[in-house]
Amino acid sequence: MKDKNLVALTPPMGFNTWDCYGAGVNEEQLLGNAEYMRDNLKQYGWEYVVCDIEWFEPTADSSSYHYFADLCMDGYSRLIPAENRFPSAKGGKGFKPIADKIHAMGLKFGIHILRGVPRQAVHRNTPTVTPGVTARMIAQGYSICPWNPDMYGVDYRVKGAQEYYDSLFELYASWGVDFVKVDDIANTEFLPNNPYSAEKEIEMIRRAIDACKRDMVLSLSPGPAPIEKAFHLSQNANMWRMSGDFWDRSEALDSMFSLCEKWYTHVAPGCWPDCDMLPLGVLQLNEKDPVYRARRSRFTPNEQKTLMNLWCIFRSPLMFGGEMRLNDEFTLSLITNRELIEINQFSCANRPIVSNAEKAIWTCVDNDGNAVYAVFNLKHENQTVSFTPDEDGVFSIYDLWTKKETPVTGRELSFELEPRESRIFRILHK
Amino acid sequence: MKDKNLVALTPPMGFNTWDCYGAGVNEEQLLGNAEYMRDNLKQYGWEYVVCDIEWFEPTADSSSYHYFADLCMDGYSRLIPAENRFPSAKGGKGFKPIADKIHAMGLKFGIHILRGVPRQAVHRNTPTVTPGVTARMIAQGYSICPWNPDMYGVDYRVKGAQEYYDSLFELYASWGVDFVKVDDIANTEFLPNNPYSAEKEIEMIRRAIDACKRDMVLSLSPGPAPIEKAFHLSQNANMWRMSGDFWDRSEALDSMFSLCEKWYTHVAPGCWPDCDMLPLGVLQLNEKDPVYRARRSRFTPNEQKTLMNLWCIFRSPLMFGGEMRLNDEFTLSLITNRELIEINQFSCANRPIVSNAEKAIWTCVDNDGNAVYAVFNLKHENQTVSFTPDEDGVFSIYDLWTKKETPVTGRELSFELEPRESRIFRILHK
Amino acid sequence: MKDKNLVALTPPMGFNTWDCYGAGVNEEQLLGNAEYMRDNLKQYGWEYVVCDIEWFEPTADSSSYHYFADLCMDGYSRLIPAENRFPSAKGGKGFKPIADKIHAMGLKFGIHILRGVPRQAVHRNTPTVTPGVTARMIAQGYSICPWNPDMYGVDYRVKGAQEYYDSLFELYASWGVDFVKVDDIANTEFLPNNPYSAEKEIEMIRRAIDACKRDMVLSLSPGPAPIEKAFHLSQNANMWRMSGDFWDRSEALDSMFSLCEKWYTHVAPGCWPDCDMLPLGVLQLNEKDPVYRARRSRFTPNEQKTLMNLWCIFRSPLMFGGEMRLNDEFTLSLITNRELIEINQFSCANRPIVSNAEKAIWTCVDNDGNAVYAVFNLKHENQTVSFTPDEDGVFSIYDLWTKKETPVTGRELSFELEPRESRIFRILHK
Amino acid sequence: MKDKNLVALTPPMGFNTWDCYGAGVNEEQLLGNAEYMRDNLKQYGWEYVVCDIEWFEPTADSSSYHYFADLCMDGYSRLIPAENRFPSAKGGKGFKPIADKIHAMGLKFGIHILRGVPRQAVHRNTPTVTPGVTARMIAQGYSICPWNPDMYGVDYRVKGAQEYYDSLFELYASWGVDFVKVDDIANTEFLPNNPYSAEKEIEMIRRAIDACKRDMVLSLSPGPAPIEKAFHLSQNANMWRMSGDFWDRSEALDSMFSLCEKWYTHVAPGCWPDCDMLPLGVLQLNEKDPVYRARRSRFTPNEQKTLMNLWCIFRSPLMFGGEMRLNDEFTLSLITNRELIEINQFSCANRPIVSNAEKAIWTCVDNDGNAVYAVFNLKHENQTVSFTPDEDGVFSIYDLWTKKETPVTGRELSFELEPRESRIFRILHK
Repeated sequence: MKDKNLVALTPPMGFNTWDCYGAGVNEEQLLGNAEYMRDNLKQYGWEYVVCDIEWFEPTADSSSYHYFADLCMDGYSRLIPAENRFPSAKGGKGFKPIADKIHAMGLKFGIHILRGVPRQAVHRNTPTVTPGVTARMIAQGYSICPWNPDMYGVDYRVKGAQEYYDSLFELYASWGVDFVKVDDIANTEFLPNNPYSAEKEIEMIRRAIDACKRDMVLSLSPGPAPIEKAFHLSQNANMWRMSGDFWDRSEALDSMFSLCEKWYTHVAPGCWPDCDMLPLGVLQLNEKDPVYRARRSRFTPNEQKTLMNLWCIFRSPLMFGGEMRLNDEFTLSLITNRELIEINQFSCANRPIVSNAEKAIWTCVDNDGNAVYAVFNLKHENQTVSFTPDEDGVFSIYDLWTKKETPVTGRELSFELEPRESRIFRILHK
Repeated sequence: MKDKNLVALTPPMGFNTWDCYGAGVNEEQLLGNAEYMRDNLKQYGWEYVVCDIEWFEPTADSSSYHYFADLCMDGYSRLIPAENRFPSAKGGKGFKPIADKIHAMGLKFGIHILRGVPRQAVHRNTPTVTPGVTARMIAQGYSICPWNPDMYGVDYRVKGAQEYYDSLFELYASWGVDFVKVDDIANTEFLPNNPYSAEKEIEMIRRAIDACKRDMVLSLSPGPAPIEKAFHLSQNANMWRMSGDFWDRSEALDSMFSLCEKWYTHVAPGCWPDCDMLPLGVLQLNEKDPVYRARRSRFTPNEQKTLMNLWCIFRSPLMFGGEMRLNDEFTLSLITNRELIEINQFSCANRPIVSNAEKAIWTCVDNDGNAVYAVFNLKHENQTVSFTPDEDGVFSIYDLWTKKETPVTGRELSFELEPRESRIFRILHK
Repeated sequence: MKDKNLVALTPPMGFNTWDCYGAGVNEEQLLGNAEYMRDNLKQYGWEYVVCDIEWFEPTADSSSYHYFADLCMDGYSRLIPAENRFPSAKGGKGFKPIADKIHAMGLKFGIHILRGVPRQAVHRNTPTVTPGVTARMIAQGYSICPWNPDMYGVDYRVKGAQEYYDSLFELYASWGVDFVKVDDIANTEFLPNNPYSAEKEIEMIRRAIDACKRDMVLSLSPGPAPIEKAFHLSQNANMWRMSGDFWDRSEALDSMFSLCEKWYTHVAPGCWPDCDMLPLGVLQLNEKDPVYRARRSRFTPNEQKTLMNLWCIFRSPLMFGGEMRLNDEFTLSLITNRELIEINQFSCANRPIVSNAEKAIWTCVDNDGNAVYAVFNLKHENQTVSFTPDEDGVFSIYDLWTKKETPVTGRELSFELEPRESRIFRILHK
Repeated sequence: MKDKNLVALTPPMGFNTWDCYGAGVNEEQLLGNAEYMRDNLKQYGWEYVVCDIEWFEPTADSSSYHYFADLCMDGYSRLIPAENRFPSAKGGKGFKPIADKIHAMGLKFGIHILRGVPRQAVHRNTPTVTPGVTARMIAQGYSICPWNPDMYGVDYRVKGAQEYYDSLFELYASWGVDFVKVDDIANTEFLPNNPYSAEKEIEMIRRAIDACKRDMVLSLSPGPAPIEKAFHLSQNANMWRMSGDFWDRSEALDSMFSLCEKWYTHVAPGCWPDCDMLPLGVLQLNEKDPVYRARRSRFTPNEQKTLMNLWCIFRSPLMFGGEMRLNDEFTLSLITNRELIEINQFSCANRPIVSNAEKAIWTCVDNDGNAVYAVFNLKHENQTVSFTPDEDGVFSIYDLWTKKETPVTGRELSFELEPRESRIFRILHK
């Protein structure tokens, strides 16, 4: 069995449909963004195209769920794509045609699932792949998601439970899925006072992926995943959410600094604590409220760079959330800074050296052995941030955004930063 | 509209099938106990015969639930009796034939329900009584019972919700139901950190009973009902559980003393904090584990009298739990002490004067204006309990169990009590 | 031993120095308010004049405490009045001269104390009344007040502990104290997760009062006292706080309605759940911040009447908090409505019939057997509040503020109320 | 300023008086153990001799504290050694004579302190080193230790606070102190719901050590230190407790495995999560209860080796707790296994690969680049533990206790382990 860490040796980079299309994405939108990635981003390392939640729900059309809608399902109680939204799935082909097209672009394909077995399968008492075992027999009636009505959790103790998960991932493997984002699993509290209630289902899914003979990145949502379970997460998943859904709000960005401070020691090849998607560019095209619908990210330009700097020096997975075909030049520039992406993909010893409510300083060592520093002004006013890097001799600093090299006099560095501004730079020794 | 308190001016007294038959009672057992009540207990005030949980589930046979079993349901998504268990229900007659027979005995008939709409109705998308409104439209997908898989809670904000509850109680009224024990409602926490999450469903049920034009006692389970909600409970229900399920364990009896101490100020006509069933006589005939199956109550004789004394001087509802046809003489004697039952039904000013881990002393005023005292040894060893009642003049004490009158010398009373023994007596002045 | 309930058969009425003078009141101010009470309020039933916290601290001058200030103390580790603030205490006379003067006015005298033994006595290791027992020996080092530095709690298990409390109340009895407000006792959490940690000290104080042979009202602070301990409170104290400090803020008034709903069943002669002081008139004369210093109560006139109506129909103790000598006519009128005060002092069966976030309706029976109702608009906008009182026959309503009688046509009553307005009225039958 | 990590590049090793002498150690015992260390342990790397709590309390004689005892203090409100217990301290020499002797043995000297300023200084209002600032002025009256009565916390916001801590460490530096264990600081909850309430005092102490111009290891107690504060701990301290006091109980050993699993990513040079003392050999010579007094460690021999294996492969500080002069041969052998100590001091990449309630497997890389594994049977019965190390080619295993090399056939390793037994071994490639 292959080590699960080998399928994600560097932080996964890609696109996910949630921030732009909610539960209502369709085939054209998915493939259109894949083509955009192929043409504009692939050269920088972006590769995953991930279809988020409710692809099995014919009437899904926004970020709200239609409670108890009829879901598309095969004869073994497995959800399959809604053909009205994904026409190529017709004839039982599932996501294979889409995956094939994305693979042909030189990219990889991912899907979102919710842990468990469909409630409709349970109440219809439909078969599973295991002879004599129906969906009803493997479901736990009290194990539900607090925010989505589709599934019951699977009881790991009963016959047919592991086989059901195995059958899911066998199906996904046959489609050509490379990435699975499993939801309602890293923080769900159906057992009292235990936000990690789904621990055994994480293990079943790990085994099912190992058994399916196809490399798949395993991503766990939602957050906050409990830090007490970091070892279990590292043993079973490739990435997991540190927070609840991250949107374009200043306070959410602030708390991501605290979360990165808590989790950075757990960052390792194949094990990526996840800052969540990049809510950049044009968001929520399906949103009903016109105040939010089709908005540009509410982050200021400084905050957008700060976001990229933190996600990269922390080594978070990078999953772009906006409708990429509507990217403006600035947005595109944020995700095509090759030197910054290299920090995300190839640096080591990433860690904070200062971390408080007013400022943060992070450092790492890049692929060439140079020290890299990122300096963040977390205040909503100007601030001078100074510090003395642990460097000997004469050196200059090379800014990863301006691409300018500046000689340094003395040992202390000092930056006059605008509100929410940050800098990331490499130390160059003479 | 009639005041809801008028239907239960004194604590309801009756029999409930849970302690003896779990979820699996049948028509013969129900009516057999009704006949026993008519012949042996009715003259003492016992009147309700209550069929507990899962009467709509054809395969129910013990105190364990069959998760996701197919339930018997009418065309409006209302559960109806399983005909294999209740043959008289055939032909759509529901519980009416049984209720008629019980009424003919001069007794009253009660049923247990779980709040909400059947999950199977939701997933089958069956109609409700409201044209155009299906079960699916009124259900809340995250509002479930943590221990039973039958129902979803009803969303009080949507069209058809109140009408659904109205249709339930209209049906029950047509059957002739006099008492409804609603479960998963007085303590259920589908809203985070709110054990009274079902507050709005309590109000819907109150309105439905008021609208159905039949007197029905409303009993709420399970406990512990939150004491912060005592006013709401008093406004809407006739009785509500102070504790989780009460069984024949010494510790459970101990904690009932604490609960009575907390709740006694809320005891009032039509508003009865409920100590739960009397687990006396022969219990759990359907239990799978032979250690527990068909056992005699594990309470000692002293504890059984202590139980009766507390339930009566507190004025709890009295619901006998054992299979009454197997009562021995001692058990029957416990529930046919007319003078004690009169304390339960007609006393006032009931209150503790001492209440701690070692002993309790309660008092009240009986229907003739005499002071009554109950003295409890809560220790598992002998104890002398002394106190000075607030009585002037010369008096004697009349023991409600021995029926003996004893003159008192001096002001202080002193009782040498065996382990877990108690005394209840009336003060008689010369 | 006299029943403790007999010393407070009706809710205590009086004046307390905290709201106007904080910790810094002096003899002139105390006696000046006593004279005001004698001249203006005594005829309406007001009688207690209570000197609040820190009378033993020479430098106290505001509502902030001087941490670790040197306290005035006698030879038995008992705190005594600071002579610079209370000159009549000179020569070891304590509060006796002041009490004598107040008694001579036909009024009663009260003091505030903090549970425990002075920390300075503990660290100086001074004697207590018990030979061989020093303050150090009876103190519990971890039992402290979270907001005041004066005392350590007393360990009820050690020799000399009860004697120390006895010696305190013997001293207070010798001074002529009629009312003791004990602080840091009804809600203090020095034992983890137990807000009623001082339970044993409450019992020691009860015994000390019973032993001192002088009637004293026992008032416990701060709140919220835990409702689970209502029986213990009723057994030991005469009044206890339901809330934290109550000040002139709308939100605080709102939550008092919820608290009254929770506690009303515990109101009884000698047992008074306490809504806290009336922050009316001119407040906080010693406050340092000029925004707050010497302000008129921020409650609107409607809110001030609403406050009086609730305190009275709930039967809370009434303790006026403002500097009474600065009362304007309106303020004086609030506390000299004889008919309203009679509701507070002599009504029974006081209870809510409606209680929610938008409105409340309370009722009681007055001393003549008439039904009384109070109707409250809790919204900050106009609201019509209607209800049908449980009255037969033809009746009129008599408003306790306007003193006008209005005939009623039909059964329903309807009131158009201004923001935060309320009405209280008596039902008069023909 | 020197990097604080440089003073503890490897896990500190030493002896601490708490487990054997509680609060009552004296000079002879301290120096006697130092001599034992010099003669028997120094050659293996053991170097710190630490005098634990209450050295300033003349009457301390067991592990119970004498509440409010008079403490020895200098003119600046700083605690100094009790001369009756440490005679060489006479003449104001403090711990300097003892430190000198220990230094002369080639060892290092440590002391225990409690955060804060002595309560007796506060109540006596004695001076601090800052002119015009008394102890009273810098104390926080509500900031106390829940289990020891000596101190008040220092308020970091007031003048003289930092100077007070600076004066403490200046004194300790003048004595020659090399190691300071600060107690009541890594887990203390004087701010509600904040077990890290003393965060600012940790920072004051850090600054004071940096200012004192002497290398001192900073050790923080008690545990559990909150893992959310791992970054702050790493920035300020050299070692910190992961647990409450660790004694010779099986359950405590079990939970240390969970704690090590949680904390291992934070182990780094200068930053040592601390498994607490080694309760081995002869313990609690001063204990009053004869059941516990002068007992041999209750751990089985297997558990004692398991303890050493875990502490070493995790890289915990090693602080021996028993009276070393009473060590038997087995006990001495546990702490003189040079190869095991080298794992503790010089290995890297230390981490669990299996961690559950039944077994644990840890691994690291030793100073020569060899893989090391430790295999633990956590059950109280025999268990075979098997696993396949991530090693290529032909290899043998070298047991660090038996010193035997065993060739391995195949890839899987399998160990038949007795109850609570463990193995630690090096992989040797051909």
